[in-house]
Amino acid sequence: MKFCSQCAHPVVFEIPPDDNLPRYICLNCKTIHYQNPKIVVCSIPFWNKEKEVSILLCRRAIEPRQGFWTLPGGFMENNETTREAALRETEEEAGADVVVRDLFALMNLPTVQQVHLFYLAELRRLSFAPGLETLETRMFTEREIPWSEIAFTSTRHAIEMFFSDPQKALDGQARLYSLDLKRLVFPV
Amino acid sequence: MKFCSQCAHPVVFEIPPDDNLPRYICLNCKTIHYQNPKIVVCSIPFWNKEKEVSILLCRRAIEPRQGFWTLPGGFMENNETTREAALRETEEEAGADVVVRDLFALMNLPTVQQVHLFYLAELRRLSFAPGLETLETRMFTEREIPWSEIAFTSTRHAIEMFFSDPQKALDGQARLYSLDLKRLVFPV
Repeated sequence: MKFCSQCAHPVVFEIPPDDNLPRYICLNCKTIHYQNPKIVVCSIPFWNKEKEVSILLCRRAIEPRQGFWTLPGGFMENNETTREAALRETEEEAGADVVVRDLFALMNLPTVQQVHLFYLAELRRLSFAPGLETLETRMFTEREIPWSEIAFTSTRHAIEMFFSDPQKALDGQARLYSLDLKRLVFPV
Repeated sequence: MKFCSQCAHPVVFEIPPDDNLPRYICLNCKTIHYQNPKIVVCSIPFWNKEKEVSILLCRRAIEPRQGFWTLPGGFMENNETTREAALRETEEEAGADVVVRDLFALMNLPTVQQVHLFYLAELRRLSFAPGLETLETRMFTEREIPWSEIAFTSTRHAIEMFFSDPQKALDGQARLYSLDLKRLVFPV
């Protein structure tokens, strides 16, 4: 941030009165521009109507990590709830029709100023199609997960935790999985 | 937002290519300025070493809702985790020494672009003192809660839910309490 978004005056980076962290401050219009972590909401779209549970992954069409596999997800928008964000991202990226269930995991990524939320999402039917940001969508059982081609560390942890006891997760009996990923560098 | 924070050029509010929501866009330097919900992290500081469980509330010294009672909490900062935010706010606002336990509640407030997280926090000792933003700090059993003087709707819901089964919460057996507060107007 170089200029005030309210009055276009150059900003300074200083600790305001009665505060203890530096902020971008406009000395002209006095606006303090706070910067805060962003929420990334992902879903774990699952299908449990066969012998083995499988989940839906998307191969990324865009950077970062183009060509790698990930769960549907993205930045939460203003004016939506976390579950609505999970539903929207699952529709947009994977063309999938899901019922969003429990929150499964909360991960902190303080080095990139993000909090990742992972919601369980039950597929209504085995129908999906890549969206604009996706090259390919596919169901994977645990044995089929392309571990070396997973796009992001948080995604990998969520998938591992899901398959550590899928029945517990699907029964809504899993404890919320909390994880702090404190050393990640971009891409995460 | 009126001006680009990168180059000070006036911004427009339009839907970018390959997007479906309007954003503030700088037509000069091409920066798209995304705006996303902010995370508010609160704690529920509890003391369960007496016959009745009690919780620590703070009477607000600042607007909004000056003079009303609330749980310690505030906007999550960059470069910290959600638990670190809960710890920091509890220290800053209530001068209390806590061990942050499980996430107890997640509430969406889409009309004000906020997500509120409430962490259980075990007081190490019955010692606390108002911080700069607090007039008064006090322990309350369920019977003593000043329901008509609680500052915020989300806080009231969290306190009600906590006292609906405090033992379950303290045993770490409570399910995550998820709530969408879709009609709130400021102050929330």
